[in-house]
Amino acid sequence: MTTARSSTRPQLIDDVAQLRQRLASAREAGLNVGLVPTMGALHEGHLSLVDACRRECGLVVVTIFVNPTQFGPHEDFARYPRDLQSDLQLLAAHGADVVFAPQTEAMYRDRHCTYVEMTGPAETLEGDSRPGHFRGVATIVLKLFNLVQPERAYFGRKDFQQSLVVRRMVADLDLPIKIVVCPLVREPDGLAKSSRNVFLSQSERGRALSLSQSLVTARQMVSDGQADVAAIVTAMREKLAAADVEIDYVAICDRDTLRPLEKLDGPAVALVAARVGQTRLIDNELLEGPS
Amino acid sequence: MTTARSSTRPQLIDDVAQLRQRLASAREAGLNVGLVPTMGALHEGHLSLVDACRRECGLVVVTIFVNPTQFGPHEDFARYPRDLQSDLQLLAAHGADVVFAPQTEAMYRDRHCTYVEMTGPAETLEGDSRPGHFRGVATIVLKLFNLVQPERAYFGRKDFQQSLVVRRMVADLDLPIKIVVCPLVREPDGLAKSSRNVFLSQSERGRALSLSQSLVTARQMVSDGQADVAAIVTAMREKLAAADVEIDYVAICDRDTLRPLEKLDGPAVALVAARVGQTRLIDNELLEGPS
Repeated sequence: MTTARSSTRPQLIDDVAQLRQRLASAREAGLNVGLVPTMGALHEGHLSLVDACRRECGLVVVTIFVNPTQFGPHEDFARYPRDLQSDLQLLAAHGADVVFAPQTEAMYRDRHCTYVEMTGPAETLEGDSRPGHFRGVATIVLKLFNLVQPERAYFGRKDFQQSLVVRRMVADLDLPIKIVVCPLVREPDGLAKSSRNVFLSQSERGRALSLSQSLVTARQMVSDGQADVAAIVTAMREKLAAADVEIDYVAICDRDTLRPLEKLDGPAVALVAARVGQTRLIDNELLEGPS
Repeated sequence: MTTARSSTRPQLIDDVAQLRQRLASAREAGLNVGLVPTMGALHEGHLSLVDACRRECGLVVVTIFVNPTQFGPHEDFARYPRDLQSDLQLLAAHGADVVFAPQTEAMYRDRHCTYVEMTGPAETLEGDSRPGHFRGVATIVLKLFNLVQPERAYFGRKDFQQSLVVRRMVADLDLPIKIVVCPLVREPDGLAKSSRNVFLSQSERGRALSLSQSLVTARQMVSDGQADVAAIVTAMREKLAAADVEIDYVAICDRDTLRPLEKLDGPAVALVAARVGQTRLIDNELLEGPS
C-alpha cells in the first residue's frame, strides 16, 4: 500500500508564516498541493489518506492539530491521544512532505471571533449528540484550507457525516478545492480503525465489535431483500444492546442530506454511535438498497 | 481622480464558472487581482474604491450583488436601488476590467446551509440594530473572496464597522488577502455618500445633514479639549434630536474592538445611525483624542 519512497522525515512546521512560505515555493515549482487534515494519533485509516494524496499530488501536506473547538466541555479533548514522534515516523514512511502541527495559540489567536455555522447535514446525528462539534470542525477545516490552499483535500469515510459537512461547506462557500473521501479502514475483525480505540480495555474491545457487526446485520438484511428501515434499525439495536453498549443513535439516512429514510429504495447509509465504557465510537456502512 | 484610460466597457459576467475562467487566465498572465465588492447603485464612494484598486492591481474586479442574507425581513431589500446600466457606464469610465453581477440563485444555491457567524465587533451597533446583518455580510464577502481570490480587496470607511468585521474575519480565517479601507466620501455639504440617499425627500435631505453635523460637533468638542465621552454623546444626540431624526445609536468606541469608551485618551471612532423618514442612514468620524 505504501508507495516506494525513501523515508526521509517530512518537514515539521508549527508556524503559519513558515507554512505559507513553504507552500509558495512549492507552487512556484509547479507542484499541486494535497492536504490531509488530522488530529494525529495516526492509524492505517489516516495513512491510507496520505497514500492517496501521495499518488495524486506533488506536495503532500499533513496537518496534526487536536482542535479544541470541536470538543464539547465534557468530551475527551484533554485525554485525546497525542504522539507526534510516532506520527512523524509513520508519515515519513508514507512519503508526506510537510507536517503542519501548530500550537493552539497559533490557530486561535487573541480575540478570535469568527466561526462557520452550518445547518442541513450538520444538524442531525453527531450534530445532535455533540452540540457545536461541526461548528468547530468546519471552522478549523476552513482555516486549514485557507492556509494551505490545496487543490485536493482527503477525508475518511469513517467520519461519514463530517465528510458530507465538509463537502457542503466547500460547495456553499465556493472553495476551489476537490474533496476526496477515502474508504473506511477496519481491523481484521471488523472494528473501524479509530484513534480512540486505544482507550478500550480488552473486554470493551470485544463489546465494541457490536458496532461493525450491527452494520453487517443491516447489510445482510438488505441483501436478503429487507427494505423496511424500522425493521433493520430494530435488528441493529438488538445487536448493540446484546453487547451492553450504550447506544447514542442508529440511523439509516439519505447519503446526501442525512435525512432519515423510512424505506430503502436506493443508495443509503447506515450510521451508528455508541458509548463503550467511557469511549464513544462511531461507524457506518453504505447500503445499496434492495437489488 | 479618474485614471486616464479608454472607457471600454468592462466584461460583464454573471456565471461562476466563467468568472473562474477569466480569473485563471488573468493569473496566468501574471496580473494581481483586486476586488471591489458592491451592491451596485454606485456613487463616488464606490468609485473611489475602484480608483484605488485600479492604481494598485493588474485586474480590477467589481462585484454587484444585492445580497439578500444581509437584509432583515422588514428591511429595504426589495426597494434597494438597482441600476446595472448606469453602474456599467461609471465602471467603464473608472477602468474596471470585470464586473461580476450574479443572480441570487447563482450565489445561494439549493440547500445552501453554511454561514459565517461572528461575535466581537459584529455584536454591537449595526449588529444589535440589524440581527443577522453581519452574518449575511461575512458570508457573502467570504464567498466572493473564494470566487475571486484577490490579493487585495477594497472597502469604504463609510461602513466602518463592516470594514472592521471583514478585517477580523480575514485574520481569524487566515485568508491571504489584504483589506484596504478607503476614506469616506461626502457631499459638499457633508452628507455621507450612500446609495440610500436617493430615498430622501428634499426636507429629509436637509434633516439628514444632522448626522454629519453631529460628528462635526464631536470633532470640535474633542479639539476644544473635551475628553468626557458622555458629554460628547449628549451634544451629538441634541444635534440629531433638533433635526427630528429617529436616533438608532450614537457611540464613541475603540477603533479595533468597537467597545464603548468612557474617556477619550487616544484614537477612537464616533458612530451614528438614525432613521430619516423611512430611510436608515449611518455615518462615522475618526476622533484622535485630545492633543
